[in-house]
Amino acid sequence: MSAQNSVLVVGSIALDDVETPFGKRENAIGGAAIFFGIAASYFTHIRIVGVAGEDFPEATLEMLKSRNIDTSGIEIADGKTFRWGGKYHEDINCRDTLYTHLNVFADFKPKIPKSFENTPYIFLGNIQPQLQLDVLKQIKNPKFIALDTMNLWIHTTREDLLKVMQKVDLVLINDSELHELTDELNLLKGLDKLHQMGPKIAVIKKGEHGAYLSYARQLFYCPVYPVYQPTDPTGAGDSFAGGFMGYLAASNRIDFRTLKKATIYGAIMGSFLVEHFSVDGLLNLKKEDIDQRYKAIRAMAML
Amino acid sequence: MSAQNSVLVVGSIALDDVETPFGKRENAIGGAAIFFGIAASYFTHIRIVGVAGEDFPEATLEMLKSRNIDTSGIEIADGKTFRWGGKYHEDINCRDTLYTHLNVFADFKPKIPKSFENTPYIFLGNIQPQLQLDVLKQIKNPKFIALDTMNLWIHTTREDLLKVMQKVDLVLINDSELHELTDELNLLKGLDKLHQMGPKIAVIKKGEHGAYLSYARQLFYCPVYPVYQPTDPTGAGDSFAGGFMGYLAASNRIDFRTLKKATIYGAIMGSFLVEHFSVDGLLNLKKEDIDQRYKAIRAMAML
Repeated sequence: MSAQNSVLVVGSIALDDVETPFGKRENAIGGAAIFFGIAASYFTHIRIVGVAGEDFPEATLEMLKSRNIDTSGIEIADGKTFRWGGKYHEDINCRDTLYTHLNVFADFKPKIPKSFENTPYIFLGNIQPQLQLDVLKQIKNPKFIALDTMNLWIHTTREDLLKVMQKVDLVLINDSELHELTDELNLLKGLDKLHQMGPKIAVIKKGEHGAYLSYARQLFYCPVYPVYQPTDPTGAGDSFAGGFMGYLAASNRIDFRTLKKATIYGAIMGSFLVEHFSVDGLLNLKKEDIDQRYKAIRAMAML
Repeated sequence: MSAQNSVLVVGSIALDDVETPFGKRENAIGGAAIFFGIAASYFTHIRIVGVAGEDFPEATLEMLKSRNIDTSGIEIADGKTFRWGGKYHEDINCRDTLYTHLNVFADFKPKIPKSFENTPYIFLGNIQPQLQLDVLKQIKNPKFIALDTMNLWIHTTREDLLKVMQKVDLVLINDSELHELTDELNLLKGLDKLHQMGPKIAVIKKGEHGAYLSYARQLFYCPVYPVYQPTDPTGAGDSFAGGFMGYLAASNRIDFRTLKKATIYGAIMGSFLVEHFSVDGLLNLKKEDIDQRYKAIRAMAML
């Protein structure tokens, strides 16, 4: 893959304390940029911009570098890494946030390294819309920009968020965020409003219920790859986004068919992620593993 | 369609009082056997066994007769028809039951008319498992038996329910019922247990999230046909079952491909049902309307 296939991701870098019905993990490597980056690195070259604290393991940075990921945009700031603590319910689709310590992430001001300025594929992870706008000012000639966000920004910084939305090609959010963004519980009505806000393309993730891709008034539906034991869903959405953007950038074509396949690769990377704690499910995949799930997801749709 | 394609449905006949965010309907024609029967009648000849009260509209019985439905198994008993009152939330996937008046349905003992005894396709609607067993004793040489049930029977008459399950080919239930039946939140684990209970085939309906068909350790996934305004979901599951069984009986073949198509026709009939109150969404469909939704659902799965 050459520079024309590179993906730049800007987002959080975290250490998580996670408890699920299947176990517990402290100091788990996490954060949207990390999940996204590792998932996407199976497809193409990745550049991460984010901030970590002095306690972030050097070994993890080395692991990222060994995987087709440029970490020169990861700033190590004085202080501690962003930390999230969460506990999942018996129904693993529900969770409680136990704490959120922003730490060094509180003062995050994304600085795009000169060598990243011309990256063609951009993923704006879930950070303040004002910071997402700052990122867009620092990049040159992007080919494709995708956006994630969350309910906090939808409610507290809606005007800024709407400004970002006018500048992006794709919004990749979950269904509850679509409802909050558009005030519509109905998928079709929500999508109509979302597209009116700017993005021509939308991916609506529905967790264990799969995902819709909406493009040019057409829908594509992708089911999840069902797994026997989802162990830790933390980062599933970011891994989905990584698989999606990684495949799209590697293909370097923006058409409905390629976007559909990207949605499937998103679902695949999400399915690997949830099977283990932290990033573990993403670490040792072979091309055949990914191909096998691609075939399985397609088989579920074939007559 | 000849007698070898007929479907017998045994289930409730009701008058419903329904309120949704989009309006209100009193004395709405309802009941599993009615929704099922009308949906299935687009595909093949239907025979209904059930009980109604003296207040059940004669015009509705005439309407059923005019639609390829044999109503000679509908008993009109002294007293009032089973009545259900419900109110749907702003999120129309949630509802509260306001009241359930069993009325004549309380003493329902299904009597299969002699002329129905040899019906090849049987749908055991959601009634007490002991009554479902009584039905099976009265029929001769069924080719294919499908079963619906509900949480009440799963919890109060589990032993009887397990006896019925050993005698049926297909269980057609929603995902929450799968969880309650198998004590598994995970789809794959739940399906493993369900198949061990007897049925070789399972359809797990997930409401607005589509449906899984499980057969011979293979899964097929069918999304819903998304509609702009779901107005009244009452009877959507029964209409799904009607579309499924109607298509299957008309095809008169039990193989994975036919079962997959039946699942799609189930989803289609459910989508028509929810667009209007009561049975109204099922009443005036043309073959082209059904064909159009079939193509649309398939298009959502095609690369």
